[in-house]
Amino acid sequence: MTISIDPLRIQPPGGILLLDQTRLPHEEIWLEVRNIEALCEAIGMLRVRGAPLLGLAGACGMAIAASTRGTSNEQLEESALEIGRTRPTAVDLGAAVDAALAAALAVPEQGRADLLWERAVAFKRQRIEEDDELARFGVELVPRGASVLTHCNTGALATGAGGTALGVIAKAWRDGRLARCFATETRPLLQGARLTAWELKRLGIPGTLLPDTAAAALIASGSIELVITGADRIAANGDSANKIGTYGLAAVAARHGVPFVIAAPCSTVDLACPDGSGIPIEYRAAAEVGGFGGQRWAPDGLETYNPAFDVTPAALINAIVTDRGIARPPFEASLRALAGGR
Amino acid sequence: MTISIDPLRIQPPGGILLLDQTRLPHEEIWLEVRNIEALCEAIGMLRVRGAPLLGLAGACGMAIAASTRGTSNEQLEESALEIGRTRPTAVDLGAAVDAALAAALAVPEQGRADLLWERAVAFKRQRIEEDDELARFGVELVPRGASVLTHCNTGALATGAGGTALGVIAKAWRDGRLARCFATETRPLLQGARLTAWELKRLGIPGTLLPDTAAAALIASGSIELVITGADRIAANGDSANKIGTYGLAAVAARHGVPFVIAAPCSTVDLACPDGSGIPIEYRAAAEVGGFGGQRWAPDGLETYNPAFDVTPAALINAIVTDRGIARPPFEASLRALAGGR
Repeated sequence: MTISIDPLRIQPPGGILLLDQTRLPHEEIWLEVRNIEALCEAIGMLRVRGAPLLGLAGACGMAIAASTRGTSNEQLEESALEIGRTRPTAVDLGAAVDAALAAALAVPEQGRADLLWERAVAFKRQRIEEDDELARFGVELVPRGASVLTHCNTGALATGAGGTALGVIAKAWRDGRLARCFATETRPLLQGARLTAWELKRLGIPGTLLPDTAAAALIASGSIELVITGADRIAANGDSANKIGTYGLAAVAARHGVPFVIAAPCSTVDLACPDGSGIPIEYRAAAEVGGFGGQRWAPDGLETYNPAFDVTPAALINAIVTDRGIARPPFEASLRALAGGR
Repeated sequence: MTISIDPLRIQPPGGILLLDQTRLPHEEIWLEVRNIEALCEAIGMLRVRGAPLLGLAGACGMAIAASTRGTSNEQLEESALEIGRTRPTAVDLGAAVDAALAAALAVPEQGRADLLWERAVAFKRQRIEEDDELARFGVELVPRGASVLTHCNTGALATGAGGTALGVIAKAWRDGRLARCFATETRPLLQGARLTAWELKRLGIPGTLLPDTAAAALIASGSIELVITGADRIAANGDSANKIGTYGLAAVAARHGVPFVIAAPCSTVDLACPDGSGIPIEYRAAAEVGGFGGQRWAPDGLETYNPAFDVTPAALINAIVTDRGIARPPFEASLRALAGGR
């Protein structure tokens, strides 16, 4: 299938075109990325974000590195380290970079740049197929006529393809089984207000935006039949790290018997990580709290608490939808069955 | 005791001076309010806000009405209706207006304006005494060396006196038993980021600001010994309406065995309202969601869900601190014992 928006366009051998997601929804600014410094800046500043899209960015980054910095073992290893450490929690980024590195090192030096570009193109094609599969499985979890609540952004802007949680929602809409999608603003970086709201409009899906603080009242009101989010890393037992705020939604959904579902490709499952306590949590800049963009609401000088992710315990998760099928509790067995062969 | 900031200054017989809280923390703008239209605009736009301070504003409003619109029964009744309907959920506002009206109607017309101004001054003195009493009771619920999480603003800017939840926190700090106060930003109107952060700085209390989305992770991290908030209306069974987002905090605190406490004067208790289902919830303007001030983050045209309050069920509340003592479950009996004699 075609994807409605394509935020990372591969242009071998020179580089990639990136949609600057920090400028949406008001401006559509494309960045021409032709070196590793620009790529790392774009990743660090969240111009490109979303776990699966970061994997694609990592694969492209290794190709750019080969074209610009050289293809010796040492040069490629150094580039891989530099790209990988820009977002330490994002398992997809590190995994894509490591896989590209290993593939390149396995062939003679003169073929490495071409190989890495071919791999980046294949990676993107695979992302599209994976999201389509995930949506096909996930749509079965959306009750007919449902209103669904989601958090952060998990659409095309997050994956470079159909999307994960928002891909499921979009397919439910196309299949005529979705009434409405409720989207949180998602402080501090407001991916819900800026990106999900923009995608919902673009897809023609009836959307309602709410402050993060209103989600508990919305769930308590009985208006929501399903809460579905993405994940940045899923431990072997099903504990799932996702955008800060996810855990609170899952806790309230459980109190009201509303199903809480994670939608993420199998590449997000980290079987080497036994449970959530082993997932490293990234803390982000103080300036993101008490303001947004150039606007400051808070007085200067206070400390801040600003983790990028929280961990939702497996006990609060009803199902984990992947591109290979639906994992249900107990997740140790079901996740291993789906993701173990990778 | 003296209060550190005084956001509503009574200036009989002409009017009042109001600190415009929508301009904090960057600007300290005082509004000279000399007619009902200006008062209702200030209440409706949240330039003056906080349940107890709205009671004081209501008492002052009736005095202003008597001085400017006349003191006949019909004139005063019409003014009372006009002021009362600006914030329908705020029980303090309606109660103060009704009490002022009844007192005025009980005396001859020529004495009514003076009486209403005297009552406004006495009301303010009583607010200060009440908050001091509330803090004296509430401080016993703060474990020694505690870090405390609060939501919205419940300090001097909310009550015109020492504050409710933030008054307890400030007393715990003065008594040397508080380590740190964590404050949520409190979307959509950001009273935590704008007002509580400003008060914490002014009081010299070590403060940490967090996005609303980070509160669940903070509680789960084990760093918080107490969650304490105000309330806008407390039903006879203890169900408490407070700023949107409170219910989610209480639900997560309960999951982790962290005490959740409501701090509010007895005037907030509505014994005529049996439980939370009887509390009217105010829905506010769509423009508050997806942006702040002049800044818009979201695309136009989406629906919004923007209730000002949610209801925390009594089962999640460990104690309700009032100016007359601490109510504990079962709240039907304990609240009636404290507030029944009013």
